[in-house]
Amino acid sequence: MNSFGVKFKFTTFGESHGKALGCIVDGVPAGIKIDEEFIQSEMNRRKPGQNKYATARKESDTVEILSGVFEGVTTGTPISMIIFNENQKSKDYSNVKDLFRPGHADFTYFNKYEIRDYRGGGRSSARETAARVAAGAIAKLLLKELNIKVQSGICEIDGIKALNIDFSNVETSEIYALDKQVEEAQKEAILKAKNSHNSVGGVALINIQNCPVGLGEPLYYKLDSQLANAMMSINAVKAIEIGDGINSVAIKGNENNDAIRANGFKSNHSGGILGGISNGDEINLKVYFKPTPSIFIKQETIDIYNNEVECELKGRHDPCVAVRGSVVAESMAALVIADMLLLNMSSTIKNIKKVYGK
Amino acid sequence: MNSFGVKFKFTTFGESHGKALGCIVDGVPAGIKIDEEFIQSEMNRRKPGQNKYATARKESDTVEILSGVFEGVTTGTPISMIIFNENQKSKDYSNVKDLFRPGHADFTYFNKYEIRDYRGGGRSSARETAARVAAGAIAKLLLKELNIKVQSGICEIDGIKALNIDFSNVETSEIYALDKQVEEAQKEAILKAKNSHNSVGGVALINIQNCPVGLGEPLYYKLDSQLANAMMSINAVKAIEIGDGINSVAIKGNENNDAIRANGFKSNHSGGILGGISNGDEINLKVYFKPTPSIFIKQETIDIYNNEVECELKGRHDPCVAVRGSVVAESMAALVIADMLLLNMSSTIKNIKKVYGK
Amino acid sequence: MNSFGVKFKFTTFGESHGKALGCIVDGVPAGIKIDEEFIQSEMNRRKPGQNKYATARKESDTVEILSGVFEGVTTGTPISMIIFNENQKSKDYSNVKDLFRPGHADFTYFNKYEIRDYRGGGRSSARETAARVAAGAIAKLLLKELNIKVQSGICEIDGIKALNIDFSNVETSEIYALDKQVEEAQKEAILKAKNSHNSVGGVALINIQNCPVGLGEPLYYKLDSQLANAMMSINAVKAIEIGDGINSVAIKGNENNDAIRANGFKSNHSGGILGGISNGDEINLKVYFKPTPSIFIKQETIDIYNNEVECELKGRHDPCVAVRGSVVAESMAALVIADMLLLNMSSTIKNIKKVYGK
Amino acid sequence: MNSFGVKFKFTTFGESHGKALGCIVDGVPAGIKIDEEFIQSEMNRRKPGQNKYATARKESDTVEILSGVFEGVTTGTPISMIIFNENQKSKDYSNVKDLFRPGHADFTYFNKYEIRDYRGGGRSSARETAARVAAGAIAKLLLKELNIKVQSGICEIDGIKALNIDFSNVETSEIYALDKQVEEAQKEAILKAKNSHNSVGGVALINIQNCPVGLGEPLYYKLDSQLANAMMSINAVKAIEIGDGINSVAIKGNENNDAIRANGFKSNHSGGILGGISNGDEINLKVYFKPTPSIFIKQETIDIYNNEVECELKGRHDPCVAVRGSVVAESMAALVIADMLLLNMSSTIKNIKKVYGK
Repeated sequence: MNSFGVKFKFTTFGESHGKALGCIVDGVPAGIKIDEEFIQSEMNRRKPGQNKYATARKESDTVEILSGVFEGVTTGTPISMIIFNENQKSKDYSNVKDLFRPGHADFTYFNKYEIRDYRGGGRSSARETAARVAAGAIAKLLLKELNIKVQSGICEIDGIKALNIDFSNVETSEIYALDKQVEEAQKEAILKAKNSHNSVGGVALINIQNCPVGLGEPLYYKLDSQLANAMMSINAVKAIEIGDGINSVAIKGNENNDAIRANGFKSNHSGGILGGISNGDEINLKVYFKPTPSIFIKQETIDIYNNEVECELKGRHDPCVAVRGSVVAESMAALVIADMLLLNMSSTIKNIKKVYGK
Repeated sequence: MNSFGVKFKFTTFGESHGKALGCIVDGVPAGIKIDEEFIQSEMNRRKPGQNKYATARKESDTVEILSGVFEGVTTGTPISMIIFNENQKSKDYSNVKDLFRPGHADFTYFNKYEIRDYRGGGRSSARETAARVAAGAIAKLLLKELNIKVQSGICEIDGIKALNIDFSNVETSEIYALDKQVEEAQKEAILKAKNSHNSVGGVALINIQNCPVGLGEPLYYKLDSQLANAMMSINAVKAIEIGDGINSVAIKGNENNDAIRANGFKSNHSGGILGGISNGDEINLKVYFKPTPSIFIKQETIDIYNNEVECELKGRHDPCVAVRGSVVAESMAALVIADMLLLNMSSTIKNIKKVYGK
Repeated sequence: MNSFGVKFKFTTFGESHGKALGCIVDGVPAGIKIDEEFIQSEMNRRKPGQNKYATARKESDTVEILSGVFEGVTTGTPISMIIFNENQKSKDYSNVKDLFRPGHADFTYFNKYEIRDYRGGGRSSARETAARVAAGAIAKLLLKELNIKVQSGICEIDGIKALNIDFSNVETSEIYALDKQVEEAQKEAILKAKNSHNSVGGVALINIQNCPVGLGEPLYYKLDSQLANAMMSINAVKAIEIGDGINSVAIKGNENNDAIRANGFKSNHSGGILGGISNGDEINLKVYFKPTPSIFIKQETIDIYNNEVECELKGRHDPCVAVRGSVVAESMAALVIADMLLLNMSSTIKNIKKVYGK
Repeated sequence: MNSFGVKFKFTTFGESHGKALGCIVDGVPAGIKIDEEFIQSEMNRRKPGQNKYATARKESDTVEILSGVFEGVTTGTPISMIIFNENQKSKDYSNVKDLFRPGHADFTYFNKYEIRDYRGGGRSSARETAARVAAGAIAKLLLKELNIKVQSGICEIDGIKALNIDFSNVETSEIYALDKQVEEAQKEAILKAKNSHNSVGGVALINIQNCPVGLGEPLYYKLDSQLANAMMSINAVKAIEIGDGINSVAIKGNENNDAIRANGFKSNHSGGILGGISNGDEINLKVYFKPTPSIFIKQETIDIYNNEVECELKGRHDPCVAVRGSVVAESMAALVIADMLLLNMSSTIKNIKKVYGK
């Protein structure tokens, strides 16, 4: 249950304050050049401690490849990657050892497993998502071979919405903002929350370009259902929409259907997916992150003996998890597309004959 | 890829205008009394042709159990159920044989498989969801043994939102409305769309009561991610939110966190799920259905030879798929909970010893 | 757990004396012509009641396809097939209702599930293998497209071993004998056992020709391990060997290694599989069936209340399950190869580009 | 495809001459004390370089646990273990870089993936089985909680068979011999093969005691079929038999059936498994290992350009892989039983109520 994907599949391990975390990526086709610098650059986009909008925890998040790559090329065997934790401050958690932080998984993990690694959320910490980004980087290297592009950015922070979507702005923005016009207001909202020991929510937009028609395995491994699964597995995500999503419920059928012309679709309300299968248009989805549950304001809670107590957190936390979360969402999208690409290969006997040369 | 679930797992088959459709439910524990009348009553809630708000296609949707039940009790072997199609009118589809209906899966199925059963959408038709409701009924019979309740209703049609949620209204409402106050307006919206050959969208609310703490397998089979997966696999669903969902992104962390007291949570913004695991509170989720793509207004499309053509549909369609879709969503939720219940059994060595009596 | 395969996957249902049995075959590529006569001819090879060497139970084993085939061609959607039971004589089992037949699964099913369909073994009956043969026929239709051939025959009955293997003899032999020289002796052994109310064991040889190099997914979905899994899942099978198998343990490394020359392997001790992957040579495996546990001699057993009783069976049974079992083993082999063919498609980025045309 | 198991599942990574190898064990219940010394002692039983009957390669095979254990107890999160390679001599393989060693996976890996890590067999090396033993040790710690014992030993080397099975002899035997009487002869056979640059085959016997009735999930995850799968996935294994196995095909039904008495079975021809489910008796299986393909005698082969060449190996190899292989087979058996234990928990609604306390 710590694996994701069927044919392009990864399995992660590791806790926030353990020795290391990492993943095994299985099903990677042989013959892909592995650009380690690219992998590290993806890690760096997610890594903590980079600016005042993120947690102060410092981690280099250096990835080491242990297997599956020979002389710079994938061999078809599982790729294992490891990231050692460097900046654990487990002492920060001694005061929450026996109590359940509100909005966190402490309560549910303890009740499910009757034991819990309380240091920084243990396995439930978003620190685990570093392993997803490493796996996602491998997926992206596969997608590049087919010229498929996955990108992301922030379209909303604390209710402040992007009006113009511009993915070129993301690269230079400390908060991966999609709209330069509202970027400053969004930054201020984050800092204001941070300064008042509070947190804010946000929304990431994921965009996939040049995806072939036909990806998605109906009926129970549809492209949209698997994207929803992937996104909702990310810490703090509470909603997901494909294409026009929520807005599509308030318009009429004739407004929502995308007319088709010889050179493609006239509109893209569907978000590039029809019947759970990619239609060749751009794929768009939005991912909603709740405000970080870790805040530095006194909160009511109970301890593991069911005593009512007050909880005051220490530690270092992102005032808005959506920002770094957008990189994770992008990685997960790349992983889903890679899996769907491999799964779709056997959709027709014609394809099978292409591979087996008959 | 036509299976859903890991331990409590179902596989469906069948096309809209084929001989029959059905499912195999695997992993059902032995010793559950199978109330066939209950199963049929669940089918009847979803079946078409019941009133003017739904499609005119008449199907009795009679379920026949072929295996897995002996003398009225489950034996632990796979339960196969079959529903014969009765009211196919495949001729209605002769005019769309070679063209792609906008908003439908025609285009993507044809491009993926290079062949397509054009009669009523074939496999991509929502008719397949009858099999899900049959499987869901078995799941519900399991949940009843543990006193877990899953219910659903319509909270929004064509932008008209329920203000007061009352599940007792659903039973007597032809459109499964949750709020009697807005029910008439919602009905009118459906009929107005129908009369103008158009369609409307809607939102279903799913509510789960008395769910034990601890359901959900982190990190890649979380309760919320699997619910999202399940819901997004339903025809016409474009968005899903857990608990406060979308609204949670515009409030602060201290407002969104649910404080914990000795007798439970003070609020339920989380929708009963923390870190992907049920927290014992009520589980709430919303499912957004786009307006039915099948409308009777002329639309622009292409045929399979890429000629631009006009498309005018015949056939019988729901003006608002959300209504009957809510029953499917409820069934899928029951199936997810059943699967999670079985998966969670081995979470601790203590549980294992309970079963093996040591 | 009633499914087999990953990408070409089937799920079966049904009990020996239930209404029907059948299967859903999922992952069948679109575009394969479905020859229903061929499917039925495969069923006929396994069906009971054909001659004095098999059980007297008469079943036409007529297969009906319910889905997944449109105008004679596969569509990529799940193929459901159903076989109605016709010749149940459940009364034959009234005397064993409460006791455990030695050598049968009665004891284990009852202890596992605390309930059991005692009529003819219920789910544990070899009658279920009819569904496997139906699924195997679909697999064979796929394999034919790539010119891959799977065949089987009997190489040993009651210790009487075939000396010369000749698959052409199988077609005309009532016991699917591979060696005409020993066929009569093997037949006599079966009749002798039958007449003394006893049963005999036997061995089937499976041979696969023209299998491409590269099938098998290391390390835990190897071609040989999955074949072993498939064969051991067949009723009454107690051993399996690949290539020289058991004999290879008593020779030296230099005798067992197959030398390689420019035009292929000089010998085939390996049975066509190296490191769990097909090497392009013929694949050979042997499947060992124990004597039918259903015999008409008094046996010691207990009833469900743990009373020691004598057990005397009625009913109709094969005196040697290996005969009809060989057809099932052949079907399972075809299913494994089909699955491996689809899985192997994404082994290299080169293959992926062949399919996606870049 | 580098994962094994459903509920108690492990995934391995690593090549013979890469940086490290290891595994992630997923699905381990919380609350099990992790005795690291025990894990290491299991590793030591398999590790190379211990005596003249095994390869001279020296590896300490020190296991480091990276996650999933907190304060010495499992937490329910994935347990990752890593073993760094220490004694690689990749230069030994420079002469086989471009050719295919007979009896090895070189040919098939190269043809499947079009690239190959030629150093010591890369991923296809039996070195990977170190990770299995680490995972198996975790499984054994679970089994100990239920008092289930898995043991193994060598019953045949080079045709020399054990006559008396005595598991107590294994502990002190350098070749894990089950029969002290033939141990010396078996040792001599190994040394004789070694001295003549050749190799010999062997057979391991696996015995499982105190296994509960009811393990095994029919029909396609039977206990015996999954054991067969597990064993055949081990390097050099060519045959597997359950209980009397091959011998059962030459006796009559009445001789092979195990009579049942109030206090248990009178005999155990079945090997403790009926209908794919454990019957509570001891489970016995035999695993046949071919002679090590790595021999130091000149052999005929081809290179990757299809030129016919002579092949003369260097390197360090076990003259009889069955010896250390028996420990791997034992580990795999423990892993299968652990998986089956967890899967069986939900077989009845009664069990479910035991866990959920109703």
